[in-house]
This record gives sequence, C-alpha cells and structure tokens, in this order.
Amino acid sequence: MSSQDAAPARFERDEDLVRESMGERSDRPSPPIEIVTIGDELLRGDLVDTNGGWLAAELHALGLPVTWMSSIGDASGDIVGAFERAFERSQVVIASGGLGPTDDDRTLTSLAQAAGVELRRDEGAFRHIEAIFARAGLSFTPNNESQAWVPEGAAVLLNEQGTAPGVRLSLPGRRGGAGCHVFCLPGVPREMKWLYQRYIAPWLQEQLGLRPARRRTLKVFGIGESTVDHRLEGLLDDVDTSGCEVSVHYRATFPENHVTLLVRPPEGGGEGAEVLADALAEEAARRLDGHLFAREAAHSYGDALVAALRGAGATVALAESCTGGRAADLLTNATGSSEVFELGIVAYANRIKQRQLGVPEAVLVEYGAVSQACVEAMARGVRERAGATYGVAISGIAGPGGGSPDKPVGTVHFALDSADGTRHLHRVFPYDRDRNKLLAAYVALWLVLREVKGVEKGSATDPLDGRWRERR
Amino acid sequence: MSSQDAAPARFERDEDLVRESMGERSDRPSPPIEIVTIGDELLRGDLVDTNGGWLAAELHALGLPVTWMSSIGDASGDIVGAFERAFERSQVVIASGGLGPTDDDRTLTSLAQAAGVELRRDEGAFRHIEAIFARAGLSFTPNNESQAWVPEGAAVLLNEQGTAPGVRLSLPGRRGGAGCHVFCLPGVPREMKWLYQRYIAPWLQEQLGLRPARRRTLKVFGIGESTVDHRLEGLLDDVDTSGCEVSVHYRATFPENHVTLLVRPPEGGGEGAEVLADALAEEAARRLDGHLFAREAAHSYGDALVAALRGAGATVALAESCTGGRAADLLTNATGSSEVFELGIVAYANRIKQRQLGVPEAVLVEYGAVSQACVEAMARGVRERAGATYGVAISGIAGPGGGSPDKPVGTVHFALDSADGTRHLHRVFPYDRDRNKLLAAYVALWLVLREVKGVEKGSATDPLDGRWRERR
Repeated sequence: MSSQDAAPARFERDEDLVRESMGERSDRPSPPIEIVTIGDELLRGDLVDTNGGWLAAELHALGLPVTWMSSIGDASGDIVGAFERAFERSQVVIASGGLGPTDDDRTLTSLAQAAGVELRRDEGAFRHIEAIFARAGLSFTPNNESQAWVPEGAAVLLNEQGTAPGVRLSLPGRRGGAGCHVFCLPGVPREMKWLYQRYIAPWLQEQLGLRPARRRTLKVFGIGESTVDHRLEGLLDDVDTSGCEVSVHYRATFPENHVTLLVRPPEGGGEGAEVLADALAEEAARRLDGHLFAREAAHSYGDALVAALRGAGATVALAESCTGGRAADLLTNATGSSEVFELGIVAYANRIKQRQLGVPEAVLVEYGAVSQACVEAMARGVRERAGATYGVAISGIAGPGGGSPDKPVGTVHFALDSADGTRHLHRVFPYDRDRNKLLAAYVALWLVLREVKGVEKGSATDPLDGRWRERR
Repeated sequence: MSSQDAAPARFERDEDLVRESMGERSDRPSPPIEIVTIGDELLRGDLVDTNGGWLAAELHALGLPVTWMSSIGDASGDIVGAFERAFERSQVVIASGGLGPTDDDRTLTSLAQAAGVELRRDEGAFRHIEAIFARAGLSFTPNNESQAWVPEGAAVLLNEQGTAPGVRLSLPGRRGGAGCHVFCLPGVPREMKWLYQRYIAPWLQEQLGLRPARRRTLKVFGIGESTVDHRLEGLLDDVDTSGCEVSVHYRATFPENHVTLLVRPPEGGGEGAEVLADALAEEAARRLDGHLFAREAAHSYGDALVAALRGAGATVALAESCTGGRAADLLTNATGSSEVFELGIVAYANRIKQRQLGVPEAVLVEYGAVSQACVEAMARGVRERAGATYGVAISGIAGPGGGSPDKPVGTVHFALDSADGTRHLHRVFPYDRDRNKLLAAYVALWLVLREVKGVEKGSATDPLDGRWRERR
C-alpha cells in the first residue's frame, strides 16, 4: 500500500467504522429486542435489507437497542423457527415482510403456528381492504381477502398506506419471563415506516415506559471522521449531564460526514435532556465550524446553499465540464433552488467552451481545457451570461481514461468569479469516475457557500483543510 | 387510496416483491449456509448492511442458497452464541466484521472460544501487516499485532487490500454431521469482496463440488415487473434444459428493471449450461424488445446511449429545466460520453430560456415554460447552438411546490429535435421531486435512444407503453 493508495482506503474505512463514545451505557440492553426481516429475495441478495437498519435506528433513538437482527426466507418452517427463538429470548420482536396476498406470504400463518393459536378473519381489516379496492376501481379477489386473516388475540394495525394490515400479538411470559410482544409489518418500506410511526413507537413508549432520546444531527463536508472525532474530544468534560446518557454517532455518506448526538434522559427525569441536547449541539457546531453545513437531519447540502444564497440575495451560475451537470443537479435537488440558480452550462467540447462561455482559443491552445486559465474564463463567461452574483466553473479529468503524467485522472480545476475578482482551486482526487464527479460538484458548491457566508475569508480558497491536496 | 395514489404504491411494491419462477428447486438448500455480519453499528442502524446482500447474491449464483442471515453486535457473548448456533445448523458460515485492531474487534477470540481452541500468532500474517506499515511509513503499534492472532488450526487468508487477514476454520461434524467451515472476513466492503473472490469462492467450488450458475442480466426501462414477468411467461416451455436448473430473478432499481437468468448445470454436467444461458437470454431479449437497453450487468443506461449514438455517428445536446442537469449527469456517467455529448444547458429562468436557447417571449407569455411550444423551441435552440444531430428538451414541475390544477406537480413536457422535425411527449409523473427528476431524465434520454435505434418508429413518441399517461 503506497501512501497515495492510502487515501481511498482511508475513506472507505470511514464508512465502515462507526464508533460510539462518551457517556455510560449498560452492556446488555434491556428489554431484549430483535428485528426479523422476511423474504427469499433478501437471502438471494436481490434486495438489500434497508428496513432492518431503519427500524434499528428508530428503536435505538427510543432507547431500545436491538440485540439481534436476522433475515430469513419465505419457507414456513424457517419463519416458525425464527418466531419460536424470538419468543424465548426477546421481549419485543418486530418482523417485516411476508404480509402480501400471495402464497409466498406466510408470516401470519407462521406466527399463529408458533404461538399455538388459530387465524381469524378481522372484519375491520376486511372492510378496509375492500374499501381500498372499491376506491381504486380494482376487482377484489379471494387472494386479497387473505390479508384480513390474523392470529387469534392479535391487535390489528390498520394500514392507511396499503392493503396489508400490521398486527401486534402479545404473548405471556415463557419460563416465568416478561412475555413477548410481536409486531408484524409489511415489507414495503413506505408502509412499514408509516405503521411503525403511527402505532409501534407510541405503544412502546407508553407500555415500556421508555425514555426516548433527543436527537441532534450535524452535517459536515471536507473533513473525515477521525478529524470530526478529534474536534469533538472532551465534548462532555465540563458539562453537567444531569444523569442523561449521551452518545455520539458518526455516519459517512460520501462525501458528507454526519454526527448524531443522542441524549437519553434518566429514569423518571427528562426536563433537562432537551436543554442539554441543544447545548451539546451548539458546542459541537462551534467546534465543527468552517465545515458544518446543516444542523438538521432533513437539511441537504443543496438546501444549505439555497438558504445561504437566498439570505444574501445572491444568485449563482455554473459552468461544468468534468462534472457533467452533477453540480447543477445537486443544487436543483433543493426545493427553492429556482430562486438562486438560473443558468448552468455543461460544456464538454472545447468549441462549446469557446462559443457558449467565451473561453479564448489561445487559452485552450496554450493551457488546455483542464487549467486555471480555462476555468477562470469559464467562470467569468457563465456569470456574465447569467447576470449572476457568482459564476463557478469546474474542469478536470474524472476518469477512468484521459489522464497524463502532468494531469493525472482526478485532476480538477475550480474557479469562482464575482464582482470581487476570481478565485482558483486545484485538486487531485483519488476516486473512481462517479466519486470524482460527485466530490468535484461538492467542492464547487462549497466555494460558493464559503464565499457567501463570508467565513474564514483567508482560507476560502482551500475549503478542504488539507485533504486531497494539489499535487505538483 | 385514489387511483392516482395507487401508482407510486405499485412502483414501490416492484422493488420489494421479487419473485422466482420456473425450473425445479429443492425446498431446502443443501448444504445449509449462513451469513453473520458483526458490529454494533449495524444494530444501531448507523450503517446499512450491504455486505450480507452482496455475499448472498454471490453464494446464490454459486449454487449455495443462504438459509439464514443475521447481524449481531460486538459483545463477545453474542458472537460466541452466534457461532455456536451456526456450528449446529450450518455447513458453511461466512462472517464479516470485527477483525480490526481495536478492543471492539472480538470476532476471532469469540470464534476460538466457540470452537474450544486457543489463539496463535501467525507469522505470515504478522510479516504481512508489518510490511504494509513499513511501506506506508506508519508506526506499528501492539494493537496492530493483534490482527496476526488467529484460532489454532485456522487457515490464514492474506489480505492484499488491508491489514486484517481473513481466516477459515474447519470444524469436525457435531452430531455425526458433515462438519462446518467457518470463514471470517473484514467488514470493509472492498476487503471483504476481495478476500471472498480470491479465496472463498474457489475453495467452495472445489471442496463442495459446486456447480456455479451461468448468469445473464437484461436491463429494461419503461415497463414494470409484472409486465416483464408476463412477457417472459412460458420462456422454458419448449426448451430442453438438459437437466439444468433455471431461475429468473427480478430486481427494480428505480426506474430500471433488471432480469437475471441463472442456469445451474446438473451434477457432473455443465457443457450445455453456457449454450442454454445464451439461448434463454436471446429469447428473453427478443420478448423484451423495445424496452431492453443492456444485456450485461456492467452496462449502464448512459453506456447504452453512448454506444447507440457512437454507432450512428450522431451527437446529442440537452436543454433541461425541471431535471436541473440530471439528464446530462446520467449521460456523462458513461465513459466515452464526450464523443457524443458536447453541450447541455440548464435553463431554470424564463429569461435564460429566451437568451440562451432562443425561446420566443411570445411562447412563454402565451403557453408558459411548461408547455409543448416551449420544449420544442428549447430543443431546436440547443441543437442549433451545439450543432448536434439531436436536441432534447425537458420542462416540467418536479415538485413539491409549483403545481396548479392545469399543470399538477409531476407534469413534464419533452421534445426531441432533429433534421427530421420535432417530436413531443407529455407525461404526469406521480413521484417526489427526486424521482420525478430522475424519471424525466430517463425518458428524455430514452427518446434519443429509440430515435437512434430506429426501432418502432411509429410508437417512438410513446416509449412508456401506457405507463404514466398524459392526463388532460
């Protein structure tokens, strides 16, 4: 491994190592909880199980760390076996999948078998399914009726997002234990999430006397997990946590890094948790300043730029070569982007750079399209044509081909033009075509964000804080 | 649920229902195999487990259907328990995660404990790790040495992608069974995949006398899974499978649908499988004609367009409004796109549509920017400016805001301009902003693909075969 190769390895590792630190945790979560996802497609790898991870994150934030997650196929024996094992070891079981109308959907018959009860037709569920079909003008088949059959004793969770109802079946304790609450949800993510939020989360909070954590999410760009970790060191040192449990989670979503603070109030307490969460988020934001772009989980990178430009009454125009429209796409993913973005030009060919952006032929002949002179001309050209506050240009070699000893694959030049003049940035990225495009789009928009916010003016030409350095 | 709402539900369902059909399969896979992914981050939902799905797909193609997949945390007791259960029920176990150098990495100590053996320092692994550190100029800490300790009796799988070696430990049969082969791999996806392909797949094929399946992948756009399924009905009816097992898998990756044919030769056979796979893929391609864009798993939508344009010696220029650069981005994700794509203009503002694309003010005043007249003018304008064979334009309302009774959210107009004249298409998509942008970008490029290929000229203005119909 050469030190050059080390960069991508480091970054991939960021995505896989997620460390938890600070605050006390008990070693064994209580009550034991498990997630079971059901479907042959999961075991064949035809579908990546995102339901399990989503449920795990929700349960964790509620204060219900998951002990086991498993995926099993559609075979009845396997489902019965999984439920029987879950009855033995878990207090809460959330299953998803296998509630459809076809022969392959065996979750509820298997649950009934494992619990030793019969199935019964639920009139409420039946009328609900019938009404959905009537409204959609679809014909109702006996298959569809099968979705109204639930285990005897189960509570039905009506599904306003689809036909399959969810169920909750509470079983008395075996071996003198606390009993087991089994929830079955459909596998369709939208329906699963809706049912969880509508019925399960409130039920768990009330029945189990949970202490849901306050959650604060901070998003940064341009620094890796280890730097974030380093900057947040000792965050809790002089803080009175008043008995709250605090944990910090890192998640890398190339090329962003997200930090989530969870503050769980003590048994019987809770008033201080909200204030503590705000204070910790404030301090964390201060420490991450210069790289922070969002303080809400729902706030995207594009949202941040749109908000900043709108706040400044400014607009931006983009001239893209190697990013091929990715920067414009990223920006226009944000609602409201039309207020701050009017023109983007994707200029792949040299003659287009001349004709559409006014890049002088002499620049292209003398320096080539991947050069400081070219991006500066592109940025000026697009700003003029759009009549925008800022003009940003990107030209580089995304790969896999097109590199040379002088300008290796990953070489990208950036320019930001405004009434104040033109800034230039030059980086060499070590990734594949897709990641080089994405990272270059982020860097280009970052130049604008830093400029608009006016923070750290002196270092605004180097927003990446030493990462992906220029290579000469 | 109104019939309008039914559409997204249907599409989401496509992604979750993956049906397998045709060909005989035994109900219980043999030998039983399981996948165990290890790490607290999985149980917290901080990280979605993609390793499990990747391994499952690889094993399935080898003829080793997975029976159980589970995720467990870093607690030693849980890992030991999972291994003990796996020894009892599985013949092959593949674990990933927990091989790092920190205290949280307990996979190998837990495996040793479950197997009742000691750990030993492996000299080969030690020298390998030492050499990596030396080459990278990093200092070697005692932590790193811990990665060279493996269970007694385990074979070491040297990792050329990182420091942590993989291991294989083969245990004698319990209860008179066939024994159990346990593989432990790192959690870093790149390292895990490399070790699997380098050591595990060949070992399994040889030791277990496997019959790896021939795999053929077809990709379609514009028809849903049920239509694909319908078109492929009876695919095997008049075919001599010569004892091969054939299965068909569907996978939806919005807005594409992928069909994978797996042809597994009979015990001891194998010569006919390759020919059969080719013949079935050919027949499936014929039945999916008009919607097929790729016949290789690695061939992307952009690749298909680049290949078609290159073959025809044609070029394309794009004028985008509501897609905001997504179409250009999609196209330029394909290597070689610079040969066929020279200019894209993202024209969000009306004055930009006038100035940069020559849309007459009268058109904007009379019909608005989201109209047939506007996209036709945009397509002509961008084609002229680029001097391209085709000019394509997209204008619509991606959402969530901006809709009206006349032009609801999801309304998109498309135009394709060429020397032959201008074609127009109008659709209303039922998705969210991101999916509406993506689908519109696909449709715009599809218009070009159909035009270039010259297939079904008569229906080229309606590539979507009845889906997402115009609504008046």
